[in-house]
Amino acid sequence: MSAIEINKESVEELISLITAQEQDELLPVLEKLYPADIAELFDDFNLDQAVYIASLLEPQKKVDVLTELDDDVKLKFLAGYSNEEIANDFFVYIDSDDAADILNAMDTTQSKEILRTINDKEHSKNIASLLKFPENTAGALMAKELIRVKQSWTIKQCTDEIRIQAEDVSKVYTAYVVDEFEELLGWISLKKILLSRENQKVEDIYDSNIISESTYSSGEEVASTMQKYDLVALPIIDAFNRLVGRVTFDDVLDYVKDEAEKDYQMLSGISGGKDTSDTVLSNTRARLPWLIVGLVGGIASSLVIGGFEEELARNLQLALFVPLIMAMAGNVGVQSSSLMVQGLANNSITNSDVWGKLGKELLIALINGLVCSGLLMGYGFVSGSHLDIMMTVGLALLSVILMAAVIGTVVPLALDRLKIDPALATGPFITTSNDLLGLFLYFMIGNAFLG
Amino acid sequence: MSAIEINKESVEELISLITAQEQDELLPVLEKLYPADIAELFDDFNLDQAVYIASLLEPQKKVDVLTELDDDVKLKFLAGYSNEEIANDFFVYIDSDDAADILNAMDTTQSKEILRTINDKEHSKNIASLLKFPENTAGALMAKELIRVKQSWTIKQCTDEIRIQAEDVSKVYTAYVVDEFEELLGWISLKKILLSRENQKVEDIYDSNIISESTYSSGEEVASTMQKYDLVALPIIDAFNRLVGRVTFDDVLDYVKDEAEKDYQMLSGISGGKDTSDTVLSNTRARLPWLIVGLVGGIASSLVIGGFEEELARNLQLALFVPLIMAMAGNVGVQSSSLMVQGLANNSITNSDVWGKLGKELLIALINGLVCSGLLMGYGFVSGSHLDIMMTVGLALLSVILMAAVIGTVVPLALDRLKIDPALATGPFITTSNDLLGLFLYFMIGNAFLG
Repeated sequence: MSAIEINKESVEELISLITAQEQDELLPVLEKLYPADIAELFDDFNLDQAVYIASLLEPQKKVDVLTELDDDVKLKFLAGYSNEEIANDFFVYIDSDDAADILNAMDTTQSKEILRTINDKEHSKNIASLLKFPENTAGALMAKELIRVKQSWTIKQCTDEIRIQAEDVSKVYTAYVVDEFEELLGWISLKKILLSRENQKVEDIYDSNIISESTYSSGEEVASTMQKYDLVALPIIDAFNRLVGRVTFDDVLDYVKDEAEKDYQMLSGISGGKDTSDTVLSNTRARLPWLIVGLVGGIASSLVIGGFEEELARNLQLALFVPLIMAMAGNVGVQSSSLMVQGLANNSITNSDVWGKLGKELLIALINGLVCSGLLMGYGFVSGSHLDIMMTVGLALLSVILMAAVIGTVVPLALDRLKIDPALATGPFITTSNDLLGLFLYFMIGNAFLG
Repeated sequence: MSAIEINKESVEELISLITAQEQDELLPVLEKLYPADIAELFDDFNLDQAVYIASLLEPQKKVDVLTELDDDVKLKFLAGYSNEEIANDFFVYIDSDDAADILNAMDTTQSKEILRTINDKEHSKNIASLLKFPENTAGALMAKELIRVKQSWTIKQCTDEIRIQAEDVSKVYTAYVVDEFEELLGWISLKKILLSRENQKVEDIYDSNIISESTYSSGEEVASTMQKYDLVALPIIDAFNRLVGRVTFDDVLDYVKDEAEKDYQMLSGISGGKDTSDTVLSNTRARLPWLIVGLVGGIASSLVIGGFEEELARNLQLALFVPLIMAMAGNVGVQSSSLMVQGLANNSITNSDVWGKLGKELLIALINGLVCSGLLMGYGFVSGSHLDIMMTVGLALLSVILMAAVIGTVVPLALDRLKIDPALATGPFITTSNDLLGLFLYFMIGNAFLG
């Protein structure tokens, strides 16, 4: 629930105010809007309109709007400014992690130029230090801005330090306690600082039970640690146990949401985290490879059926149930594989209980297979189909369901053991391989029973 | 990264220490473990072992372990205690939202009995007030515990209030400012309280720009508001603008993760948020309905092919490409529908740009269709297939891809307009309907071209 509703009418009204440069009317509206709202409006503005609105905002709010923009809009908007302006109008007010994200999206020449131009050399060095971490590591997710206090300090000194840092560190929940070598010792909550006497010593009251991750931990590990322990911020340490940054809950929330979207799309046969607003070309690139997997599978299927062409000519009714066999093989395979992929991602499946999981999936498949085959035979009886055809199809269906459950369970586990992302095995991949094997099994059984 | 690694060996070691009641050896280990770690261990303990470990923990930590347990383990564990113990040993230390979750999972007789038995009547009333909200609303997600300050107070009074509430409100990030009617006026961060002079008035420094949601907002709205505005906690108000609770980031992180898992499973044809550790029966129940959808679709497909039996007998080669046509129809349909479902869930698609989205999906489908048909014809040429068959299959493939894109785009949008969750239209549902229409189109084209 925001102060001002953003809809088609309000956007049009704003654009006409911008065109007329009605600063006096715009200012109170902008005052009421949060950075995230203004960022949303930028989707509907052209570059001139966006730059004009930005010029009316106070420096910190202007930067907050920038960091809230979608990645592609961000670069388009910054194209309205010189490198000098980006370095010293924007980057002074920006957290190191957000700055590093922007530089990572730019070409190297421009990002180097901007880093060189930043007047605050300390800030520039902080940002540069984040650029060296590979994508999707704790190092790449973390920000350098945090409150760091020494164990020997008093609470009064902590408060003074927070006062000094207050401008740079926008969100303070915790102060991290370090020793003289910058090694992380523990933490102290803002609440505890507030409620303690000024002359109390940090070393007497800080909490040495502290959870941290190393800079090379994966984004997945950071997210699951923060979720497991309900942490609002997670300190990140280097190989020498020195405190180098922190990841905050908002970054993790975005990360979890992005990853979930990517997994969902992988299951649908779309790579790389697309949304409907991406270009036709990039959408095609993300989908075509999976369609070609399906196409190759389809051609292979035609060869399998071609191999049974004589049997098919003798028993044409076998052709009628090809779609049924394929659909069921695909559905069961996707059900089993997606639960495996989720379980592996959650670490709720360990390699030690592979046999247990497989047995359970087989049992579920057996129940589902018996019910589905039973229903199919019932339909065959009611519709007056040939008994031998329906027996064949029913038996094939049961076998195919069991086979699909085995493949759906084993393939993700095997990929995981080979250190390949098991999510790759969901969607079109598992459907295609199950189609092929299912058809083969179906015609084999048909051949054996119908001759 | 936790202090002690939990693995098969350490669990066995712990169980043998429990069996021998080696309290002196267990205490330092438990001291080192976080509540979330101990909760994880409970999965491997029987009831007696869990109750023994709980008896060694200090009261607050015991409750923290309880709230970290999975829902089913939670009830099993509490079966080891009387209602009186649950009410006054556990619930005194538990946040209202966590208590309400537990009561919701119990049968009504037990939950009423526990509520009646709680000695702290204020706390009991708070918990009871949460039970009335429907699942998946802000009211059901929120906790009553928060720091509430009056606009007329000084900073000193705020600090005193935080000190009084410190035991009940474990996580303090923000104090909410209310007037004499409990109406929400604004907020003040803990950092600002810490850095302000003791005699400063709240009304002079609090921030009146505050984002809130009503008790009847959906969980989805709460999550997207907190994510959009990067909020560590979101105040919840009633119909009279009175502050009644707050939702914190950790609840939202769990919510987002659970919802993503449910959507993922829906796409795989599994209902209701299962994991591999659920029972065989509940897993079967979650999957069988979708398999029956597929089965009915398969039977319908057999009727479609049966209707073209004569054409098929004349051109048996048409049967070879049934799997290819079906697989491609399914894959394209799932690609289009899943992007639509995600876009609708994110509010990034509005009803006004339906035609634009449809046009774009058709363009993408046209490119993908041309490429796939081209590849298929190329294969036909190389493999020396009959030209007329390959032309027919190629044209049918292109048509089926276009059709699947239209269905995949339109069905979720239509469901959304009918206020039905569009996620229902993904997975087996879209695959099955595309299979049917695709086959029909295929044989129609085959019939027209091959006679």
